[in-house]
Amino acid sequence: MKIVKTIQNMRQLSKKAKIHNKSIGLVPTMGCLHDGHLSLIHRARKDCDVVVVSIFVNPMQFAQGEDLEKYPRDFNADRKLAESAGADVVFYPDAKHICQKDSSTFISVENMGKIWEGKTRPDHFRGVCTIVGKLFNVVNPDVAYFGQKDAQQAEIIERMVKDLDFNVKIVVVPTVREKDGLAMSSRNKYLSSKERKAALVLYRSLQEARAMIKNGEKKSDKVLDCMRSFVKKERLSRLDYVGIVNSEDFSAVSEISKTSLIIIACRIGKTRLIDNFLLV
Amino acid sequence: MKIVKTIQNMRQLSKKAKIHNKSIGLVPTMGCLHDGHLSLIHRARKDCDVVVVSIFVNPMQFAQGEDLEKYPRDFNADRKLAESAGADVVFYPDAKHICQKDSSTFISVENMGKIWEGKTRPDHFRGVCTIVGKLFNVVNPDVAYFGQKDAQQAEIIERMVKDLDFNVKIVVVPTVREKDGLAMSSRNKYLSSKERKAALVLYRSLQEARAMIKNGEKKSDKVLDCMRSFVKKERLSRLDYVGIVNSEDFSAVSEISKTSLIIIACRIGKTRLIDNFLLV
Repeated sequence: MKIVKTIQNMRQLSKKAKIHNKSIGLVPTMGCLHDGHLSLIHRARKDCDVVVVSIFVNPMQFAQGEDLEKYPRDFNADRKLAESAGADVVFYPDAKHICQKDSSTFISVENMGKIWEGKTRPDHFRGVCTIVGKLFNVVNPDVAYFGQKDAQQAEIIERMVKDLDFNVKIVVVPTVREKDGLAMSSRNKYLSSKERKAALVLYRSLQEARAMIKNGEKKSDKVLDCMRSFVKKERLSRLDYVGIVNSEDFSAVSEISKTSLIIIACRIGKTRLIDNFLLV
Repeated sequence: MKIVKTIQNMRQLSKKAKIHNKSIGLVPTMGCLHDGHLSLIHRARKDCDVVVVSIFVNPMQFAQGEDLEKYPRDFNADRKLAESAGADVVFYPDAKHICQKDSSTFISVENMGKIWEGKTRPDHFRGVCTIVGKLFNVVNPDVAYFGQKDAQQAEIIERMVKDLDFNVKIVVVPTVREKDGLAMSSRNKYLSSKERKAALVLYRSLQEARAMIKNGEKKSDKVLDCMRSFVKKERLSRLDYVGIVNSEDFSAVSEISKTSLIIIACRIGKTRLIDNFLLV
């Protein structure tokens, strides 16, 4: 497996692959790889000739006061995990090369980029789209892989690709969960053991909702009320939002259908976690 | 010369060229080709194996009340001119395919995109950057050509390419002028014969400024005051702005240097025209 640190070397490697008519799969990550990331890499390995895992903690997607500085970083562990999952290349650019100080160009998605996660974290998706657009321009992938756990991010990236005609196919891979149901996330590392137990409230409230819907409930309000009171019972949790939305544009729906998505964001202590269930 | 109307066919053509290791030059235009555009095509012909001229009147770069509807269009004339100048391909997409109604992703350049032209025309450069980014993603050019007449646009595109790591070289080609000095522009067509004469005020005020600077004037204020009174004398003109700026970021400079650029925008009757002189 190769470690590539510069944009120039990454471009050369991709150009060579393209000349040999090889397909490139990109798994963009911020490192701190867990089984969720590994499932993306496995999928890329199955689909593509060359698998590139990018590791870069993108400062543009963190707001002032968020966890940019303390975000967990362990390149050696990540490198080994990426290799074991089948990566051919780890693209590990230096922040100062890929996010230059005088950079003033941004890619943003209106509407969908401003609600739910975009409301709580105003410039978050602009930072995500800008860096993912840059990665697409440097790595030139045929396919890029994103996790369903970050459902709104995946949908926004799909929107960006369609609107800007990026020649990239987006594949969204199912959420990987711990045995007890907690969605895998690099931020789970922040949780104390008490908080780790409390964090299950996200998964369990989603399960509650799904059970109600299976039993015939069609009204979003009723399901959401139930989820809210469920979360309230967990002393260490503070609900940020809960919603039932159209999975294509994240607009809230009042009547639940097969294309609906239930989304939740909670703080557990100081750690902000998100999760979602597709109803398909 | 080929006429390509769909994104898919354009992509295929570019892919084929790349596989044969041919370089692609792109000249993005809104049609209504004049000698300014032809000089871009000639330059692309000299530099590249495959010359693509895109013709597309981009609704995103016009504000409400601007001249989108009446903007001159004559595809047959443009096609012949592009061919005579050496184009291999005219990419002529349908507006509804390249600017879809539900499109909500934008590329914007802060700072430089909000001053001068960006102040008078608030979403103009966002529209330009978004469509040029799309064209880069579809045509996949090695080099793209822009005219010095739209100096701020060219500089903003260079900024975008650098910030988003587009793998495209930007070449800026000198302004082509009518015999009497008027910068070529599709909008010159709007001018009555009286206005056509009055329009010379842009070029002449730039000449006045250059003469003052050659004679040793270093203070922007003095030169700009002189330009303002020069423009005032022309009854049919209404000054929008005049400025002396750093040619790399369009910030106003108080002391004139070799890297300064003098910019001017005027209304002549209802027609808005721009021009500039580099001092290098």
